[in-house]
Amino acid sequence: MLGQKRIRDYGVEVGELQTGQYNAITDVAGVTVGHLTLSKDDIQTGVTAILPHQGNLFKEKLIASTHVLNGFGKTTGTIQVNELGTIETPIILTNTLSVGTATDALIEYMLDQNPEIGRTTGTVNPIIGECNDMILNDIRARAISKEHVFQALENTASEFKEGTVGAGTGMVCYSLKGGIGTASRVIHLEHGAYTMGVLVLSNFGKLSDLTINEKLIGRTVSNAISNKYEQRDKGSIIFIVGTDLPVSERQLNRIIKRTVTGLARTGSIISNGSGDIAIGFSTATKIPHEKPAKCLTIPTIHEEDIDLAFRAVGEATEEAILNSLITATRVNGRDGNERPALAELLKEYKISLT
Amino acid sequence: MLGQKRIRDYGVEVGELQTGQYNAITDVAGVTVGHLTLSKDDIQTGVTAILPHQGNLFKEKLIASTHVLNGFGKTTGTIQVNELGTIETPIILTNTLSVGTATDALIEYMLDQNPEIGRTTGTVNPIIGECNDMILNDIRARAISKEHVFQALENTASEFKEGTVGAGTGMVCYSLKGGIGTASRVIHLEHGAYTMGVLVLSNFGKLSDLTINEKLIGRTVSNAISNKYEQRDKGSIIFIVGTDLPVSERQLNRIIKRTVTGLARTGSIISNGSGDIAIGFSTATKIPHEKPAKCLTIPTIHEEDIDLAFRAVGEATEEAILNSLITATRVNGRDGNERPALAELLKEYKISLT
Amino acid sequence: MLGQKRIRDYGVEVGELQTGQYNAITDVAGVTVGHLTLSKDDIQTGVTAILPHQGNLFKEKLIASTHVLNGFGKTTGTIQVNELGTIETPIILTNTLSVGTATDALIEYMLDQNPEIGRTTGTVNPIIGECNDMILNDIRARAISKEHVFQALENTASEFKEGTVGAGTGMVCYSLKGGIGTASRVIHLEHGAYTMGVLVLSNFGKLSDLTINEKLIGRTVSNAISNKYEQRDKGSIIFIVGTDLPVSERQLNRIIKRTVTGLARTGSIISNGSGDIAIGFSTATKIPHEKPAKCLTIPTIHEEDIDLAFRAVGEATEEAILNSLITATRVNGRDGNERPALAELLKEYKISLT
Amino acid sequence: MLGQKRIRDYGVEVGELQTGQYNAITDVAGVTVGHLTLSKDDIQTGVTAILPHQGNLFKEKLIASTHVLNGFGKTTGTIQVNELGTIETPIILTNTLSVGTATDALIEYMLDQNPEIGRTTGTVNPIIGECNDMILNDIRARAISKEHVFQALENTASEFKEGTVGAGTGMVCYSLKGGIGTASRVIHLEHGAYTMGVLVLSNFGKLSDLTINEKLIGRTVSNAISNKYEQRDKGSIIFIVGTDLPVSERQLNRIIKRTVTGLARTGSIISNGSGDIAIGFSTATKIPHEKPAKCLTIPTIHEEDIDLAFRAVGEATEEAILNSLITATRVNGRDGNERPALAELLKEYKISLT
Repeated sequence: MLGQKRIRDYGVEVGELQTGQYNAITDVAGVTVGHLTLSKDDIQTGVTAILPHQGNLFKEKLIASTHVLNGFGKTTGTIQVNELGTIETPIILTNTLSVGTATDALIEYMLDQNPEIGRTTGTVNPIIGECNDMILNDIRARAISKEHVFQALENTASEFKEGTVGAGTGMVCYSLKGGIGTASRVIHLEHGAYTMGVLVLSNFGKLSDLTINEKLIGRTVSNAISNKYEQRDKGSIIFIVGTDLPVSERQLNRIIKRTVTGLARTGSIISNGSGDIAIGFSTATKIPHEKPAKCLTIPTIHEEDIDLAFRAVGEATEEAILNSLITATRVNGRDGNERPALAELLKEYKISLT
Repeated sequence: MLGQKRIRDYGVEVGELQTGQYNAITDVAGVTVGHLTLSKDDIQTGVTAILPHQGNLFKEKLIASTHVLNGFGKTTGTIQVNELGTIETPIILTNTLSVGTATDALIEYMLDQNPEIGRTTGTVNPIIGECNDMILNDIRARAISKEHVFQALENTASEFKEGTVGAGTGMVCYSLKGGIGTASRVIHLEHGAYTMGVLVLSNFGKLSDLTINEKLIGRTVSNAISNKYEQRDKGSIIFIVGTDLPVSERQLNRIIKRTVTGLARTGSIISNGSGDIAIGFSTATKIPHEKPAKCLTIPTIHEEDIDLAFRAVGEATEEAILNSLITATRVNGRDGNERPALAELLKEYKISLT
Repeated sequence: MLGQKRIRDYGVEVGELQTGQYNAITDVAGVTVGHLTLSKDDIQTGVTAILPHQGNLFKEKLIASTHVLNGFGKTTGTIQVNELGTIETPIILTNTLSVGTATDALIEYMLDQNPEIGRTTGTVNPIIGECNDMILNDIRARAISKEHVFQALENTASEFKEGTVGAGTGMVCYSLKGGIGTASRVIHLEHGAYTMGVLVLSNFGKLSDLTINEKLIGRTVSNAISNKYEQRDKGSIIFIVGTDLPVSERQLNRIIKRTVTGLARTGSIISNGSGDIAIGFSTATKIPHEKPAKCLTIPTIHEEDIDLAFRAVGEATEEAILNSLITATRVNGRDGNERPALAELLKEYKISLT
Repeated sequence: MLGQKRIRDYGVEVGELQTGQYNAITDVAGVTVGHLTLSKDDIQTGVTAILPHQGNLFKEKLIASTHVLNGFGKTTGTIQVNELGTIETPIILTNTLSVGTATDALIEYMLDQNPEIGRTTGTVNPIIGECNDMILNDIRARAISKEHVFQALENTASEFKEGTVGAGTGMVCYSLKGGIGTASRVIHLEHGAYTMGVLVLSNFGKLSDLTINEKLIGRTVSNAISNKYEQRDKGSIIFIVGTDLPVSERQLNRIIKRTVTGLARTGSIISNGSGDIAIGFSTATKIPHEKPAKCLTIPTIHEEDIDLAFRAVGEATEEAILNSLITATRVNGRDGNERPALAELLKEYKISLT
């Protein structure tokens, strides 16, 4: 977005469903995304914040679910989301060793907005996703401060950058620069049109596995650059799935599990050293923090309507990953480590994606 | 029920909540239970059927959930219940080696009622729970036929026997005769009064662990009878939880997990060789098999209302287990194996429960 | 196998790892597979049996695990496998409504081999996987008898047919004839070479999604045949994963989860109406039924060695699915329903896979 | 310990198994525990650190598992423990809103000990458990600093205080002062004697439910004090289970699930607002961070040996909870909130536990 050349601009269309206006998670009404980027010498890292809606999330929670594709990761907050089926804070993404700081910052942010927390009501469940950017970033420096998290939250908007930005600044995907990517799909059911949005923080895979548009682009590129960059499949991917589809937390869980179809189609084998974790929320219903006198009534789709959502999340995930790769820019980071951008290699070696 | 002397008739009150009319799972409107008992020489076994509602369950499913406390068991149907959050058949309980026959019978029963299954719509998910009654029953004889299952389904009613009956005929609990037991609780929330019913098939525990009314009755009895019966803690317990509380499948899962509190308070350590499995359903909402044009709307309690349900299910479970013991009658079964009834031992050795 | 033209014979190579001798699950030493096929008019169904080893499985169990990709299915036996981490019977595959009969047959088979079951030791946990073959088979007829299951077990061998055979007789995959397929991979670790074998019962997907060799073959075929066959994505897939890799049940679970990468690469969106279930076992260690005096010692790979296994299972799964399609033959079944074979369409419409 | 009067000193014996030397988690060789306590006016909180062994945990990991009894909690690190089956850091307990700080501190502690983290090897998975001490502690002040965590780690020893200390300083259990408690059991198997140790951070329950020594002490006390203190069942409990029993992560998971039997027997209904989470480790095997050339060999008990471990963990949990209550001392904390100690009430109202 914001003037970046995305995968569709290279002629690659993923799947058969229609995209939303921005082809982004922010096509789901109320969702905004913000970044804070640190990019100087050995420090190549940052924070990305996702606001599921623009009101008070603690007072008006959203139905939510998480799913662990592979659990070599340190994402926090998932236990409570799965027990209670709700999310009550923004989602923060950052590097692995800054999860503590981000947790602390998000708690502070929530306390500021909700003076009753820890006084007349209970505590709050912060959600932090992470990937390990140690190749390009001096992760041991733990450069992220609470202030950086607050800034990312402050920066949230409907339009936002992809690629080498925010939490994606130092990430490496398929041995190239990865980072933030997003996409969306619109599905039409009998009772309305709904949007499925996905945002990924991509940091996994080895180049020779990369598949784009049903072509083994990774092998072509790998040969072109003579296997120059280390090709160990380490790292992780975080999937944030937002939708306005009315679903139960069980249905949402089924939907976010299908991120794996998009992931697999880009070539991933879901390697050992990877924290592959999906976090989803639906904006269709707001669950009040305070108990009302009456029962809640939760609108949900009939199960027979769910296949389109499965297709949508798979397509949006695949495209979000490809967007994270194609919008990324080269980084020369820690100790002289560097990772080139896919776009630059395609141009240099005259490789077409179509 | 039906003239049997139950644990409350011995002065034992479990917990603090009020019971339903029958103090049985059938206090949940629409739920009925039926037995078929085989009790002759080496054959001491049977079938118990639970109807969650009196309509066509396949066409009008109920929200449901299952929970495995300990998985050394062969209960079937749980995968689909957990994926889809619904139950679409009656629940059948029987002995371990008759699960295949019971499955086949329940399929036949459902096919008869629903000619569209396997023709214009998909298949059906039968739910069979089981315990191993090999001590008293010649389980290798696999005496249960499909006709027996049909008869148990035919016999369902609001009032039913407990103890040495139906699937409970050959079961052994705390080294004594166990079997079928039930209890219920009524809870009052701001928006209405609701019933929580539990039925157990008890077949676990060793005598010296048995605790009733906060007293270590098991040790007393064990000393009285000079440890006459083998006291290995093997076997299983199946918990059927029915309620009219409006809950999501996630909330229902949380509720049925609390059966463990009642189980533990009777003295169980949840031993290795045990299939301890809970199956729950809520009659509050009927989920149509055929997709309607509009979204479903599911009434659910607010999470802050759930504690009373937790308390209710724990109390009802504990009382259901005690009812299964105290209503059971002595069985002399396979190869001369016998297990006395708790009631008879209390009388013989003049042991008071209060 | 056995003279059938498989996907490699069409020039399609899946992945980069080497196959085993048969390119089949039976490349894992000790594993055999047998079929019983019923194919006459409206009855198009059968049984496939997998023997994990050739000894007494009840007395010498294997480390095992199961994983539910999507739980719209009726596979039995998974609760106990996951609790105890072992498999103690052969695995039987058949149609959905014959699970009861297959369970009963497998129990009988095990009782015959083990007279101590239900007498001096506990019961046995039969494992039955299923898919719904109602399009081509009169599934309501429940044509499978116990004798058919015994015959499939009797027929097990190292070499076996794929495609329209055994449990695969009536299955439909990507709107074409599916059924049984298999493949294997050999991986080389520092401490030895190991085999990963996969067998699938394929019964899922819609034609336009089918992807082979990174090409959208499904769309090409669909256009060629003018969308002649109903293209609803229903049904299921069962994955049987056998290996001689020394793994813990946790590691094995991680491995069998990766079947999804192969599945997704053939085009699946893992649709709602699908029981997608993986069952895995390792032949590396035999767990004795009877407790020995000493501790067991379980050889397991270090986690850093697991990525090759992940790659292997994904590749073998993808190839097994493609083998199930390409070896299948046209079936004209129930009520005149028919499904063509991929091989025949490729030939008729001169479509190349390479 | 350390001169404190514990539940056995009141004549209460829980269960039938023998205790270890200290009747503490530190009876497991190599395990040490340390506290840092903040107790001044409105700040009533602290940190408790558990070292699973005395070597370099990152280089020599232990087999580990976690289990969520109820997930209304913010414990971190569980995803990776469950995926990989190992623990690689000490365990830190503190208040809910200090989890971020504790995470950051534990990361720093691990980085200091392991300069290769984030350079030549990956990152590290910190494990933080928490309860909400907001009644007695000004939790919004987030008084815990990184230095406090380091001090708790520094303070670890075989003998340690229970009750109102460390992370337990501000905790409330059964409406009275709760906090840290511990107990252990020794079990004798054919191949050796093994120790099962439990440490709890208790912060749950309402007074009228409290059961000690099979007596409803809570009701007696509640009547005596005229229901003076708010009796809402909120809060949480963290269970740390250490053992030298040789077990797989699956077996360990089965064992730590049985903490619920001890919990239930003290009277808990496992209420909604509770993060009830068990974390277990076995010191029997050290899993090297660096891959060796050969396979690992993991000694594990046969499943038939596990019942004694189930009994041991239930007994030790029950006694650990009672120790946390009986050793606790009265706290007057935030905003004049106070909670009395059980010991003081027993004395004041002349209530006997036997």
